[in-house]
Amino acid sequence: MLKMKKIILAPDSFKGTMSAITICGIAERVIKRFFPDAEIINVPIADGGEGTCDCFFEALGGEKIDVKVSGPFFEKVDSFYLLLPDKKTAVIEMSAAAGLPLAGDKKNPAITTTFGVGELILHVLKKGVKKIILGLGGSATNDGGAGMAAALGIKFFDNEGKDFIPTGGTLEKITKIDFSDKLKQLDDCAFIAMCDVNNPICGTNGAAYIFAPQKGADPEMVKTLDENLLHFSKIILAYTGKDILNIPGTGAAGGMGAGVLAFLTGELKSGIETVLDTVGFDELLEGADLVITGEGRIDSQSLSGKAVIGVARRAKKKNVPVVAVCGGIEDDIMEVYNEGVSAVFSINRKPLPFSEARLFSEKNLELTIDSLMRVIKNINKGDCR
Amino acid sequence: MLKMKKIILAPDSFKGTMSAITICGIAERVIKRFFPDAEIINVPIADGGEGTCDCFFEALGGEKIDVKVSGPFFEKVDSFYLLLPDKKTAVIEMSAAAGLPLAGDKKNPAITTTFGVGELILHVLKKGVKKIILGLGGSATNDGGAGMAAALGIKFFDNEGKDFIPTGGTLEKITKIDFSDKLKQLDDCAFIAMCDVNNPICGTNGAAYIFAPQKGADPEMVKTLDENLLHFSKIILAYTGKDILNIPGTGAAGGMGAGVLAFLTGELKSGIETVLDTVGFDELLEGADLVITGEGRIDSQSLSGKAVIGVARRAKKKNVPVVAVCGGIEDDIMEVYNEGVSAVFSINRKPLPFSEARLFSEKNLELTIDSLMRVIKNINKGDCR
Repeated sequence: MLKMKKIILAPDSFKGTMSAITICGIAERVIKRFFPDAEIINVPIADGGEGTCDCFFEALGGEKIDVKVSGPFFEKVDSFYLLLPDKKTAVIEMSAAAGLPLAGDKKNPAITTTFGVGELILHVLKKGVKKIILGLGGSATNDGGAGMAAALGIKFFDNEGKDFIPTGGTLEKITKIDFSDKLKQLDDCAFIAMCDVNNPICGTNGAAYIFAPQKGADPEMVKTLDENLLHFSKIILAYTGKDILNIPGTGAAGGMGAGVLAFLTGELKSGIETVLDTVGFDELLEGADLVITGEGRIDSQSLSGKAVIGVARRAKKKNVPVVAVCGGIEDDIMEVYNEGVSAVFSINRKPLPFSEARLFSEKNLELTIDSLMRVIKNINKGDCR
Repeated sequence: MLKMKKIILAPDSFKGTMSAITICGIAERVIKRFFPDAEIINVPIADGGEGTCDCFFEALGGEKIDVKVSGPFFEKVDSFYLLLPDKKTAVIEMSAAAGLPLAGDKKNPAITTTFGVGELILHVLKKGVKKIILGLGGSATNDGGAGMAAALGIKFFDNEGKDFIPTGGTLEKITKIDFSDKLKQLDDCAFIAMCDVNNPICGTNGAAYIFAPQKGADPEMVKTLDENLLHFSKIILAYTGKDILNIPGTGAAGGMGAGVLAFLTGELKSGIETVLDTVGFDELLEGADLVITGEGRIDSQSLSGKAVIGVARRAKKKNVPVVAVCGGIEDDIMEVYNEGVSAVFSINRKPLPFSEARLFSEKNLELTIDSLMRVIKNINKGDCR
């Protein structure tokens, strides 16, 4: 019988049904029934949105620290960040200070701010952290990160020479940016902004047109927000020499992607690569017998930035088999096998529409992992004949 | 890597989507991609209905012989039977002479006959056959097998002393049965009637009430047909001493189950057990590495007579792992594992209602077998460490 000494669980969430941590929990419980002595390593994949800190905590441990910062409307809110065990790295999810849920019924991307995200960074920097993983996603804002920058000492002036904290609706008032009071420690801290979208900051595929409607903008406001981000980009180019206009991902989280590039020593990186690098996935793979990954929907169309492919590419290099469990499998998935996926299973146990199937997703996942373990455990009797 | 030298494919049909033979064909094609040298043995499971001869032919070969016999309305129809390679056994599916499709738009269980089934038996007996497997199912009749008996020389008389061929609507006219001209060879031939229902011949759970409506009977006709079968049972008891009234399965195929017990040296047997016995499944299992079985819907409720369980119980005795692939998996299936099923996979690759999912069943099955083979082939690298 096949021995399973080490299994890595690295699933993405199934959007709308199960978090990555939930999936890890179910899979671990099932696997233990078949291989009680196996070492199970949980690496739930975060995308930068809500729950990103929890994913890193699940994978690496560390210290989740509660702080009070400004919320989307400059009101005080309870927030948090995660200090990783190395004490040199912290994880911040911007939605913990500027997230849509915090805005409640009042969501309005013209007046919301990322100021609290900057305050979170201030808190983190006091701990002597040298690297900050900043999860973009789930934001209620469209301020291009100007609020965050303001909290970090960067000053924005209007045409009357008055400094102010710009929001999505007032970015067009900026006539000057002054970096002289910018917090010095920022230069010693590297930022990685987790970002799974490729949208540019401006235009019909940009932050305002694509994401502002779900943040409460009507078509007229969208147009204004987009024009304001264009103005903001030009001002940034003038004062920093950085041309952020056509960089993919700068439109993430209301232009926060642009803010990270313009005001911080930062780079934009996919959630999956950030997680895998941070947990040391390549080292974890040493001696692993199996990786179980998964995502809500698998296809061969959009391979980059997807959890399953990111996991598989690394596992392939180490010859570790990868099984993907998915909520739905699209038609042509041959390419995923080339990328290192060994097999793909859907969790759907019956023909049911999604509206009904989603209610059984945890149970269905359990059965799928159960069946997989049964195959691995039982169909190996002839191995060493 | 695991070697797969011998794989047995023994699926039931997925009702409404794929025949057992189709499933075997898809599975074999996929398996060959991964284990080109594996011996693949196809044992598509028949239930006694349409396609039963094809299933036996697929598993055992033999000679399919075309004959002309009487159809449901005593008209001449093209029919056939299967002579197995041992030349001592034949397979007849009664639907080939008395099936619903032959009745077309005129279906009427009061006037249809199983006379042609008797004629098929006559043809077969001329070949010197000693065992006839008679598939019940899909019949357009409700004559209790009286038509078949008449073709074999058994005479039915009315109260005017005139012999006639009773049908569902005229069974009540029988006052006397005469066996003196019954074909002599019948005594040297054993009959196995394949029958997957447990309905008795009479009553609200009997042949007429349960099956006659789909054969064209209105409620009034159902009542008459049921009364006629009761009369028929009493006459049989009087003239043969056989009390068929409360035997499960006598209500199969318009009371044909009763006819087999009353007029032939016959037994009723589930489709799965008949197939497995006839193909010598226990011997086939010797040296097999894997059995793949399956059915449209799997649950723990109705274990007996189901293909998956029948296959698993035998495989368990020989320690051969069994994987079931299914169109739908019901909630509690733990019991199937106790019966010898190693693992169960659903073929549903996406959350879709049955009306849509059924259109993709062949493709979905292919993917499921493909994934299973990938797991078996790829997740065994560490086996012999």
